[in-house]
Amino acid sequence: MEIIRSNFKINLHKVYQAIEEADFFAIDGEFSGISDGPSVTALTSGFDTPEERYQKLKKHSMDFLLFQFGLCAFKYDHTDSKHVTKSFNFYVFPKPFSRSSPDVKFVCQSSSIDFLASQGFDFNKVFCSGIPYLNQEEERQLREQFDEKRSQANGAGALAKCPVTIPEDQKKFIDQVIEKIEDFLQSEEKRSLELDPCTGFQRKLIYQTLSWKYPKGIHVETLETDKKERHIVISKVDEEERKRREQEKYTKEQEELNDAVGFSRVIHAIANSGKLVVGHNMLLDVMHTIHQFYCPLPADLNEFKEMAICVFPRLLDTKLMASTQPFKDIINNTSLAELEKRLKETPFDPPKVESAEGFPSYDTASEQLHEAGYDAYITGLCFISMANYLGSLLSPPKMCVSARSKLIEPFFNKLFLMRVMDIPYLNLEGPDLQPKRDHVLHVTFPKEWKTSDLYQLFSAFGNIQISWIDDTSAFVSLSQPEQVQIAVNTSKYAESYRIQTYAEYVGKKQEGKQVKRKWTEDSWKEVDRKRPHMQGPCYHSNSFTAAGVLGKRTLSPDPREAALEDRESEEVSDSELEQTDSCTDPLPEGRKKSKKLKRMKKELSLAGSVSDSPAVLFEVPDTW
Amino acid sequence: MEIIRSNFKINLHKVYQAIEEADFFAIDGEFSGISDGPSVTALTSGFDTPEERYQKLKKHSMDFLLFQFGLCAFKYDHTDSKHVTKSFNFYVFPKPFSRSSPDVKFVCQSSSIDFLASQGFDFNKVFCSGIPYLNQEEERQLREQFDEKRSQANGAGALAKCPVTIPEDQKKFIDQVIEKIEDFLQSEEKRSLELDPCTGFQRKLIYQTLSWKYPKGIHVETLETDKKERHIVISKVDEEERKRREQEKYTKEQEELNDAVGFSRVIHAIANSGKLVVGHNMLLDVMHTIHQFYCPLPADLNEFKEMAICVFPRLLDTKLMASTQPFKDIINNTSLAELEKRLKETPFDPPKVESAEGFPSYDTASEQLHEAGYDAYITGLCFISMANYLGSLLSPPKMCVSARSKLIEPFFNKLFLMRVMDIPYLNLEGPDLQPKRDHVLHVTFPKEWKTSDLYQLFSAFGNIQISWIDDTSAFVSLSQPEQVQIAVNTSKYAESYRIQTYAEYVGKKQEGKQVKRKWTEDSWKEVDRKRPHMQGPCYHSNSFTAAGVLGKRTLSPDPREAALEDRESEEVSDSELEQTDSCTDPLPEGRKKSKKLKRMKKELSLAGSVSDSPAVLFEVPDTW
Repeated sequence: MEIIRSNFKINLHKVYQAIEEADFFAIDGEFSGISDGPSVTALTSGFDTPEERYQKLKKHSMDFLLFQFGLCAFKYDHTDSKHVTKSFNFYVFPKPFSRSSPDVKFVCQSSSIDFLASQGFDFNKVFCSGIPYLNQEEERQLREQFDEKRSQANGAGALAKCPVTIPEDQKKFIDQVIEKIEDFLQSEEKRSLELDPCTGFQRKLIYQTLSWKYPKGIHVETLETDKKERHIVISKVDEEERKRREQEKYTKEQEELNDAVGFSRVIHAIANSGKLVVGHNMLLDVMHTIHQFYCPLPADLNEFKEMAICVFPRLLDTKLMASTQPFKDIINNTSLAELEKRLKETPFDPPKVESAEGFPSYDTASEQLHEAGYDAYITGLCFISMANYLGSLLSPPKMCVSARSKLIEPFFNKLFLMRVMDIPYLNLEGPDLQPKRDHVLHVTFPKEWKTSDLYQLFSAFGNIQISWIDDTSAFVSLSQPEQVQIAVNTSKYAESYRIQTYAEYVGKKQEGKQVKRKWTEDSWKEVDRKRPHMQGPCYHSNSFTAAGVLGKRTLSPDPREAALEDRESEEVSDSELEQTDSCTDPLPEGRKKSKKLKRMKKELSLAGSVSDSPAVLFEVPDTW
Repeated sequence: MEIIRSNFKINLHKVYQAIEEADFFAIDGEFSGISDGPSVTALTSGFDTPEERYQKLKKHSMDFLLFQFGLCAFKYDHTDSKHVTKSFNFYVFPKPFSRSSPDVKFVCQSSSIDFLASQGFDFNKVFCSGIPYLNQEEERQLREQFDEKRSQANGAGALAKCPVTIPEDQKKFIDQVIEKIEDFLQSEEKRSLELDPCTGFQRKLIYQTLSWKYPKGIHVETLETDKKERHIVISKVDEEERKRREQEKYTKEQEELNDAVGFSRVIHAIANSGKLVVGHNMLLDVMHTIHQFYCPLPADLNEFKEMAICVFPRLLDTKLMASTQPFKDIINNTSLAELEKRLKETPFDPPKVESAEGFPSYDTASEQLHEAGYDAYITGLCFISMANYLGSLLSPPKMCVSARSKLIEPFFNKLFLMRVMDIPYLNLEGPDLQPKRDHVLHVTFPKEWKTSDLYQLFSAFGNIQISWIDDTSAFVSLSQPEQVQIAVNTSKYAESYRIQTYAEYVGKKQEGKQVKRKWTEDSWKEVDRKRPHMQGPCYHSNSFTAAGVLGKRTLSPDPREAALEDRESEEVSDSELEQTDSCTDPLPEGRKKSKKLKRMKKELSLAGSVSDSPAVLFEVPDTW
């Protein structure tokens, strides 16, 4: 279902309902660009640490716009043993709400735009009909503006408690205004009085004077003439009428506010549901969603992890799933289109899926790839197929694995890391994997060097892998760690280039960081003081070891676990989650956050007790 | 006529023809945003100097995209006494030419996008069908790439003169390739040989080896398989066949290159024509056009002036014209839409205009404002009406004033400066006006202050004008210069704010600059060395005094001058201009520049002799 600005409000209840009913969601975003950096290759070095990758994406990708958001809600129909889907394709655009509202600037990358254009993307729908949105700070500011205006207008503000200081040169003007109002209040026939247009400062003085002088009996409002001049209109009202008008205005303002918050309400509802959110290669989707609809991304990766878990307590990345055992050996290409095709063939079993009544159905035979709603739908299908495959490996086999099954828990909150050679995922729930990289060299060289020069330099070492860092440095991994020291030694007297081990490189880098940190110690303290609630990370050690164990892990399904699975998952289910979370609008920020943290802690302790259980079903390995 | 990617090539000759025939052009651009800065107000302080304004626009506006370019060519038909127009509306988009070509990033400002959307702008035409373009540096690089590829392919490169050094580990591979080729050359039946796909480095080695070993008799080229793997194909050719193939390839490459240069060819043709280019409030149009289709804007305003004059030797801004005597008194609103309406009424006389055959005509009654082609058309109409009005003031009146008339010369190369209180224009041909600003104060204050606080602070000084600089400073102009010292004196002991005269402020700022310049003296010298041709500016003192003469200047038409006008303008006409300039593709950069400078100097000496003549017709005043 296509949702744009004009049909957003009348369909919002359908979106809420879909979110409330769903077992899980799949999401996908389309962006105005991917990488704002010098070049994508430089941005995704094969030996990035998760921290480095996060910093690169934050710096070079967040200025693009997420302008199409796909949401597909999946609900299992036990009677007919089929999944019922409700798919939404939202066009999103930061249309300025008023003259004083933020005027968002965003970057477009011509290659991305050109690619979307070639896929038939409708830019007019985005720019002419996109649904507006606000992040939480913008929403708060707008709310404050409304509150301030209201308190100014109905004289409830503190300023009204005592007479206002009128500047000398304004006294005559204000006196004349009061005289006019006195005449107006005396007269029987006139119900309202229009003052002449005047400056904003003068209007403020009038409001303040009147709210002090006439706390009751008159209603003051500012209207705009055809010529866009603002003038004050005063009307006689009794208390009841005054209250009615205020209520009317308040209701109208709340509606305006809701319209301005716009699409963010959908994201809030998804987040508040606490349900599983599936995506394909979803790190950028998650980063953009938080950045655009919640708040600017934090400077530090650990803070980002906390934030991501707060917003989306359960994430699952189908690209990571497909690249992990037992799938890795039977799935060659993990791109979404290829994955979808592969999962239609044995040993996989395409799930029975139907779109809900009133929702258009997608035909996977005629691909509409890169429309966010369709991509989300396909992602959900891939997830179901792979989850069911895990069930089929149990004895007795379980044909339909739910989104709450413990079978898929090993994949929770691990987001695929593109093109990193030896760290498959970003672990949102704890420290990241730290591969040894004892076969990796860090090489610096003149900027004229090309890949072929590096091949030539290392021609004696057999097969090598090169991963560029920038114009003058690269990581080179050798096939045999023993050769590392030989390479370093032979380079000792070289003039044009320099080779060091990965460990040396990291050591020096961290030294540099500590010096930097020392220099800016005061400002670091400052930051710490500002966010006391961020102190003491509540990561729990999950069931995956982060040590440097090499080799592929194999699947070891355990029938005892399989029997446990359904019961366990039902225990976690509706009882707790659906009491605290409903698909309504977000709670005020403070309350919501503490509630989220509470839930997070509850889940963590639950997870803790689970990891005490005898064995682990599947493991996402640290290298492959 | 709407021109997009698909119909650009077949219509280019029409564009060239229109440019060649025209008496003058009007242009207009639509952008993806106006100001990237913190806020437009802060960006356009009312007391900006031209240098400051240039720097602000350069810094905050050049990241936007000029994505629609309107060109309207006007030609006077003496037989029917009418203007014949050819109007073009170009959609422009930097579609990447290939994987290695620049991937342009541009910024969009949501308020601008929303505004264009509300005017029915078609974004799909821009993003899906925009004409590509390259600036001069990109064009040069692409040309070099083609040349390099060609010299590599046909072995004309220096590398082929001697045997290539093959790295140890590649020797076996190369030997096997040579063996295969020897076999192939021996065999009678086979005409061509396909090698297996290999790495780019290996292909380079093969090319180099073959061009040295077999300088004649074979043709080597790289093709891509269906799987995007590149492999080398070798064919036996005689010398004639080889040359034919090379010529064919060269022609194809030239066409590809022309396609990539795309819309820039239109701008080059306009520039090379040397004809009058009219725009409305055109500073941003000129800056964007140079930035996007020639080269990044220079750091310094004076260099920009030289560059602008080089690209467009004659510019005329209708907004400046309408804001200057004799028009200022009879035109209230100089916005394009209002100006166009006003110029249909007395004392103005709407010109007789018709669109050329095959060109759709615009109906000014049903406005299509903010479509660049239409805006350019309207701008041209406004220019004609105002020029003719100048003619009507002569005795005897001259009903039709040409684009080469001396009557309009006073308006040449002066671009309107938006919202600067006392400097009406940027003077491209010499130093800018330097108003005294002896009634202006520079005030710094806490960032909590609002406009009303400033009004309050200066309430004793009557009418003031405030012009914000940033959060904590503003210029305040008093109505009476005598009060300036009083204000400064009373602020001596103030703690929260500080007041200084404009002269003091400028003095301190320049001190700061000189210190900065001292520090970077070496790099300054560097810059100077790099552009010796920029030394010794060739500005001529034009006929407008830059001194601080107050008050409005009045029109003083002089019949002697009027009689001169036509003869003079014909002397400048076709003879020189049309010999040196034709509407063909741009000349190689170096030649073109020197040619331009030559012409520039010729024109300047012409203008010099003109300014010796007894009187000045109209003057663009320095304040009004």
